[in-house]
Amino acid sequence: MSSDPLVIFTPSGKRGRFEVGTPILTAARQLGVDLDSVCGGRGICSKCQVTPSVGAFPKHGVTVSADALSNWNAVEQRYKDKRGLIDGRRLGCQATVQGDVVIDVPPESQVHRQVVRKRAEARDIVMNPSTRLYYVEVEEPDMHQPLGDLERLIEALHDQWELEGVQADFHILSELQSALRKGQWKITVAVHAGDKINPPRIMHIWPGYYEGTIYGLAVDLGSTTIAAHLCDLQSGEVVASSGIMNPQIRFGEDLMSRVSYGMMNKGGDVEMTTAVREGMNALFVQIASEAEIDKALIMDAVFVCNPVMHHLFLGIDPFELGQAPFALATSSALSLRASELELNIHPAARTYILPCIAGHVGADAAAVALSEAPDKSDELMLVVDVGTNAEILLGNKEKVLACSSPTGPAFEGAQISSGQRAAPGAIERVEIDVVTKEPRFQIIGSDLWSDEDGFDLAVAATGITGICGSGIIEVIAEMRMAGLLDASGLVGSAAQTGSARCVPDDRTHAYLLWDGSADGGPVITVTNGDVRAIQMAKAALYSGARLLMDKFGAETVDKVVLAGAFGAHISAKHAMVLGMIPDCPLDKVTSAGNAAGTGARIALLNTKARREIEATVRKIKKVETAVEARFQEHFVNASAIPNAVEPFPILAQTVTLPDVSFNTGGEGSGGGRRRRRRG
Amino acid sequence: MSSDPLVIFTPSGKRGRFEVGTPILTAARQLGVDLDSVCGGRGICSKCQVTPSVGAFPKHGVTVSADALSNWNAVEQRYKDKRGLIDGRRLGCQATVQGDVVIDVPPESQVHRQVVRKRAEARDIVMNPSTRLYYVEVEEPDMHQPLGDLERLIEALHDQWELEGVQADFHILSELQSALRKGQWKITVAVHAGDKINPPRIMHIWPGYYEGTIYGLAVDLGSTTIAAHLCDLQSGEVVASSGIMNPQIRFGEDLMSRVSYGMMNKGGDVEMTTAVREGMNALFVQIASEAEIDKALIMDAVFVCNPVMHHLFLGIDPFELGQAPFALATSSALSLRASELELNIHPAARTYILPCIAGHVGADAAAVALSEAPDKSDELMLVVDVGTNAEILLGNKEKVLACSSPTGPAFEGAQISSGQRAAPGAIERVEIDVVTKEPRFQIIGSDLWSDEDGFDLAVAATGITGICGSGIIEVIAEMRMAGLLDASGLVGSAAQTGSARCVPDDRTHAYLLWDGSADGGPVITVTNGDVRAIQMAKAALYSGARLLMDKFGAETVDKVVLAGAFGAHISAKHAMVLGMIPDCPLDKVTSAGNAAGTGARIALLNTKARREIEATVRKIKKVETAVEARFQEHFVNASAIPNAVEPFPILAQTVTLPDVSFNTGGEGSGGGRRRRRRG
Repeated sequence: MSSDPLVIFTPSGKRGRFEVGTPILTAARQLGVDLDSVCGGRGICSKCQVTPSVGAFPKHGVTVSADALSNWNAVEQRYKDKRGLIDGRRLGCQATVQGDVVIDVPPESQVHRQVVRKRAEARDIVMNPSTRLYYVEVEEPDMHQPLGDLERLIEALHDQWELEGVQADFHILSELQSALRKGQWKITVAVHAGDKINPPRIMHIWPGYYEGTIYGLAVDLGSTTIAAHLCDLQSGEVVASSGIMNPQIRFGEDLMSRVSYGMMNKGGDVEMTTAVREGMNALFVQIASEAEIDKALIMDAVFVCNPVMHHLFLGIDPFELGQAPFALATSSALSLRASELELNIHPAARTYILPCIAGHVGADAAAVALSEAPDKSDELMLVVDVGTNAEILLGNKEKVLACSSPTGPAFEGAQISSGQRAAPGAIERVEIDVVTKEPRFQIIGSDLWSDEDGFDLAVAATGITGICGSGIIEVIAEMRMAGLLDASGLVGSAAQTGSARCVPDDRTHAYLLWDGSADGGPVITVTNGDVRAIQMAKAALYSGARLLMDKFGAETVDKVVLAGAFGAHISAKHAMVLGMIPDCPLDKVTSAGNAAGTGARIALLNTKARREIEATVRKIKKVETAVEARFQEHFVNASAIPNAVEPFPILAQTVTLPDVSFNTGGEGSGGGRRRRRRG
Repeated sequence: MSSDPLVIFTPSGKRGRFEVGTPILTAARQLGVDLDSVCGGRGICSKCQVTPSVGAFPKHGVTVSADALSNWNAVEQRYKDKRGLIDGRRLGCQATVQGDVVIDVPPESQVHRQVVRKRAEARDIVMNPSTRLYYVEVEEPDMHQPLGDLERLIEALHDQWELEGVQADFHILSELQSALRKGQWKITVAVHAGDKINPPRIMHIWPGYYEGTIYGLAVDLGSTTIAAHLCDLQSGEVVASSGIMNPQIRFGEDLMSRVSYGMMNKGGDVEMTTAVREGMNALFVQIASEAEIDKALIMDAVFVCNPVMHHLFLGIDPFELGQAPFALATSSALSLRASELELNIHPAARTYILPCIAGHVGADAAAVALSEAPDKSDELMLVVDVGTNAEILLGNKEKVLACSSPTGPAFEGAQISSGQRAAPGAIERVEIDVVTKEPRFQIIGSDLWSDEDGFDLAVAATGITGICGSGIIEVIAEMRMAGLLDASGLVGSAAQTGSARCVPDDRTHAYLLWDGSADGGPVITVTNGDVRAIQMAKAALYSGARLLMDKFGAETVDKVVLAGAFGAHISAKHAMVLGMIPDCPLDKVTSAGNAAGTGARIALLNTKARREIEATVRKIKKVETAVEARFQEHFVNASAIPNAVEPFPILAQTVTLPDVSFNTGGEGSGGGRRRRRRG
């Protein structure tokens, strides 16, 4: 026995001795090496490709000779001729052990391969999808052993794949007999692995060996947009991404107006449910056509959304979410059939909706928690998903707290005089020279700054149309840094600031960012009202974070993650100048992009992550801002725009803020000097 | 402690000491006494009625004083005023222990009450339905503990009823919030208990306390008729029974012609599936209207049927059942939603279809096994379900064998010259005088014999129209006993038999049973062809039974059960004279009526019985008659009609059979004397 050849697998390092003639796939299975196979070692699927090495491996203590594996065989040659095989690769089910050997399992041959995420600091996704393909050979019927065809298929899945307790979806019954006979008792089945409630179930069958793949959808159902990633459930690859406007917008721009629509119009909730499902189906048609695949191959879909969208999508009247105590109909994760949600993908497709944390903190926040994993962090981590409502998570390995804070739509460009959605033509980056008080900016759709050559040409197509959310944050922070704005949020006059761009505006002043009137374009100013709106929004956001810090017992946080489409575009420096987020070293502020969407993708590709986030959500402590006195207190204190930024790394950039404050002289505004500082 | 009062429950005999003031319901629960309650002891449902006894109980060693229970209270009085309460009854949740007491739990207060079956020799059915009602009080939402309404309902079911792992049907989500608020956080839920695959699930909710009951259907889906019992799922009572013709008859009278219809007509199987489901729904409308209940209160349905009907009902093309090896698409029991079968009962109603034993021995045979329980019998028991195919079970506690035998439709009156279905006007009982060779008979619809006064009047409405299955068996057996028929099955001539009723018929003879031609009615004869048809049918039946006896290693059986609508009308004596069934003491031959329907009712009312029959079916050994040489052998030997009946108790009636045999003299028939005896 000890003279049997030694087989060492990389990268796992697993090793064992096997008799001469043992197929590599068999050795891998016996050692628990993660080597894929759909056909069960029959030389059909080629998923078990491996790369043997030759030469001395002092690290492993073996020398591999050129004849350590059996000769290249006809099955491998046929596969190579038909589909191609990278030089040096062998099929693990064909190549057998002849001597000591080191076998590398390339990532694409691993079942639990890692899907690499773009962000360096983020965890990779380990593939563990809910639905997998299995090729089996089924025993022919025998009238003396009168088991049904289905029962023999289930036996085959047990014997050939060690699958226990498999059931079949109802529709399989009417398809099975002809498929088995057409495939001459060979069949490929898609099996949903089940979960803590449901047993594994056969969802689809193909006669013989099915060469294709199957797909899943990760859907981020937002109030404004619905975005989806279409993923290959075998490779984990995103094969298409697409988005549409949420058709519910016609019932109200924000969530509360939709809740009201349901209250004011009999059947309004049903109308909205129909609308969002129809929109979803339109999106699925679009994404499938983009990827050039059959929609019926989509067998799994994961949804994340805020509580109101959650209820409307599920067909639940969101009435209760519009009033205290904000009772959710259900807070648990849901496993449903696509047909229950009237989705036109595979008729038996499974769907999974992440759990809600509370009446204001939805499955989208749960998805952010799954993606950013504050519960796995050693450092104290603040995760802020900025939107009309900001969802805020604060925690580390020890515990995680969550709240939502009503920031309103200002960060999305609404309620801002020159505000607009993030779209080509919108100002998204602003700098103001502290000496000249003159601005320069970038618009969405061009990489040039407004004072660079070619800018006029670059913006000719779109024009300069307004300011989007990230632009308004930058311009206000820059105005503060340039001494154009006092701590209370008042815009100074031309006389006070020495800048002709500070123009009178009603009884206050506004900063003229861009005057396009000569060409019939807009005059874009930042008014005192704009500053007020942003002050309210940022105070809400900041107060939520501070409240969680109080509850956690923390004075500072170690890192901040800005999530959400908007979060991805915010400049950390400006957000901190503005006082949107608590103090934190600037290099510890990162943007996670659409973390909710990423969480959906993780849950789609790895069913274990579903159990994980369900457990995490049960442990997350919910803090209700609406009834916390300290939230109000923080809010009042946080409306000022900080004038002392010494602790921040931005000082390294030698920005010195003048401690200005202006008196508008208006009757209604009190007139006195306002000085509010954060406590 | 030991001085606490002693509480003794009857009929269980369970006893224990309880503190003064303990409610009887609480005492019952702690002792595991089967005392019903839907409202959980809140004095609403009155399901926990008990009868306390007063006086000396030497058997129990106690004397019960008149004040052993707390005084009659206002809740009890209110209930009595409103709904009535039998004198002497108390509500178990209101009456509390004050002294030693003996408490009787009447049958209607037991959850697991017994449903008494009409047949004395049959087991009673113990109530254990799949779906039960629970009344619960749910905690109001709390924004600091943001569990969903559903999760709090599930907690309440756990805390108040010890139900574990309850899930909810999807439709509950959209109904729950308004129901909870309408019922002021009190709600009645129907929970399906789940099974080895599925968790318990909430199927329906009512705000507050629901006073009504819920129903289930036991359906016997036959080739010719569909019959259903509607049962109260709380009391077990049959509240209505109804039947319709299977609308599939238009595609073919017998099963094989329906299989052929599917083969010859594209989409024919789908047409037949639609037809049977539509028929089923029509039946459900009929039965619900008969019982004057809302169809939506039907929450469970159990189906039994032969394999071809099984497949057609499920939407599976029965093609494979028409040819060897008779492969079933599935042989397991199936738990499906009513919606999957397009049934118009409660939209979330569960259905259960019993397992099939083999390609020819279906869920109906499984239901017969459940009803007659040969697997629990000490005696060797032969169960014969006679139809176009006879399903035969033979066994005892040790083992059970099953086969089906192609008897053809002769027993149902088809292929018989004067044959007809069992319907008013059909001759069903016959006696022939051994001396005069004159017949007397009864027809369906009258209890009078044809030679009794008033018979003419009694049959005036229907006329005498033909012979049904039981009639043809009796007349042939009687002809044999009267010496009108020889052992080979030839009808003697008038000269041979001395009876003018033996009239020439083509090249053979026929026995004139009834001549109604004077009144324009039919001439009813038993022809030699009729005898041949019955010989074939009974030989098939007998051979199947004999084959199972061979396989079992038994020469005789201890008892015979005749099942099926036809079985209920067969005279055991005549069946044995004819040689339909193996020798057995006549008093050990019983009729089980529609045993398949009874099996369906058992499975409906007791979910444990489902697990039981699933286990039994897995153990039943299937014998395939089609490929057994011994079946052919038995068949050849069994076509004769026995001429020695000495071992049978009918001899006690001093009937002596002449050992006659006739020569037809016909050219084609060989002319020699035929003598076949069973081996």
